[in-house]
Amino acid sequence: MVRIGREHFITRFGPELRAVAEVEPGGTAVFETHDCWHGQLGSEDQRMKGLDFTVMNPATGPLGIIGAKPGDTLAVKVLSIRTGRTGLVSILPGDGVLGHMVKESKTRMLPIEDGKVIFDGIAISAVPMVGVMGVAASGDEAGDVSTATPGRHGGNMDTKDVREGATVYFPVRQYGALLAMGDVHALMGDGEVCVTGCETEAEVEVRVDIAKRTVLDWPAIDDGESFMIVASAEDLDKAAEEATAAAVSLISRTQDIPWEEAYMLASLAVDLRISQCVDPRRTVRAVIPHRILKRPIGL
Amino acid sequence: MVRIGREHFITRFGPELRAVAEVEPGGTAVFETHDCWHGQLGSEDQRMKGLDFTVMNPATGPLGIIGAKPGDTLAVKVLSIRTGRTGLVSILPGDGVLGHMVKESKTRMLPIEDGKVIFDGIAISAVPMVGVMGVAASGDEAGDVSTATPGRHGGNMDTKDVREGATVYFPVRQYGALLAMGDVHALMGDGEVCVTGCETEAEVEVRVDIAKRTVLDWPAIDDGESFMIVASAEDLDKAAEEATAAAVSLISRTQDIPWEEAYMLASLAVDLRISQCVDPRRTVRAVIPHRILKRPIGL
Repeated sequence: MVRIGREHFITRFGPELRAVAEVEPGGTAVFETHDCWHGQLGSEDQRMKGLDFTVMNPATGPLGIIGAKPGDTLAVKVLSIRTGRTGLVSILPGDGVLGHMVKESKTRMLPIEDGKVIFDGIAISAVPMVGVMGVAASGDEAGDVSTATPGRHGGNMDTKDVREGATVYFPVRQYGALLAMGDVHALMGDGEVCVTGCETEAEVEVRVDIAKRTVLDWPAIDDGESFMIVASAEDLDKAAEEATAAAVSLISRTQDIPWEEAYMLASLAVDLRISQCVDPRRTVRAVIPHRILKRPIGL
Repeated sequence: MVRIGREHFITRFGPELRAVAEVEPGGTAVFETHDCWHGQLGSEDQRMKGLDFTVMNPATGPLGIIGAKPGDTLAVKVLSIRTGRTGLVSILPGDGVLGHMVKESKTRMLPIEDGKVIFDGIAISAVPMVGVMGVAASGDEAGDVSTATPGRHGGNMDTKDVREGATVYFPVRQYGALLAMGDVHALMGDGEVCVTGCETEAEVEVRVDIAKRTVLDWPAIDDGESFMIVASAEDLDKAAEEATAAAVSLISRTQDIPWEEAYMLASLAVDLRISQCVDPRRTVRAVIPHRILKRPIGL
């Protein structure tokens, strides 16, 4: 099994990436990940000012998948996420949905014990998720490919459903796909409203494969109950439109029904859900329940 | 028990409303509701052009609640929703998330049988919900109070959680509160992306009461597991901000924790969910799970 240490990290999903390790389709790999602060925030009293912001939101990798080529779809099955024993949640002036109301930065260190995150005496079940996961973008990809923000290549999607048991799909744009991940949260609400979840270092084990069909312009997630298209844009309305357009197109093509009917069916039974609205591009997922499909969406 | 026939309907939640029936706190009432088309759309072939758009999205009522006064909070427990046997889903050029891609209006009539909505041979479990529910607005309420759009008074919130078993709360702005409802959907996805759900006439039975505490500037829903604040604005980002601000303020006040901590807790465990993005104001609900609270949010 391949293991990639957290000293191998990227801060851009650019087309220039080079693999630090390789694996055959069907193989597994463990990614040791930093927290979103690159481990720089060691106590609640530490000031934000001294931090090196050029290494924030590091993604461990990239892993090359042998034989993957542009036009393929990469399938990443999340086998396990092992978090650290402590998480950090922070607020910063100007960041998050209510950043204009934050006067000074504050951090809370949260114990993660027996599958619970402890906040102010309240024990909340941890639901570990991978905030940043993506592949090398195409050369002409529009927009930023910093690991701090999301796009068609994945990146900082901050989507709760990227968790144990889920399979995450990416459109491959570069030979080898070049998968990297980081920014694990032990817990996060849809929206990630204050700009951080429960940020923690972690070890993430995945199995990678190349999907047979290639129908995606956006990342997608299958959790066994639903197929979700994960779209990002400069605001929530635009992200909602992108997610809807992709979902309706996919339903129409894979179910062989007219576009108009797929649009109606989506209005009845597809849920648009906010993933995050702070990164600063926003992410919305269109959740297509398997049960509304005549045939599964086969990748 | 009070019963209000569907011939008593409003198309504005204005301050000028007058009750057509009254009930004491603790009493129950049945509202017979038209579908969103006011029953005018009788077949799949019918053209939209001839319809009377001045009576669309009718809300049956208003019901006066004896003793309710401005500053109170009205609690509306949804006891049952009995839908018709047929639902309509329609698309119209210019309406919905992808309205720019719709060339001509189309309607599908959908059987509602044994708790299922049948769409193109797919049987989907019906989850009846009330699209429009609200109270008379204050005189200086900003924005439109047409029954076609949502606001602080409720209105066309199109939120799936307004369903059997839920309690819906409204800030009372006029003597008697003046409750009205309509626009029942047998089924709808979060977003209501094509601008309609499975539209049907219905009978809705509710129990009304006056809540003891008055802490709300927006409608809210309690489904027994979560307390949800339902905020609307001109775009999804602004609606998300309003919902977050209200949720953080409520958590801080009711749990006696600093605003900064409530903001962090919300980021960890409150879900921002899209209710609808087509009415044309958008609605986002902030879902606060009871399990993250030290003390319940008592109304």
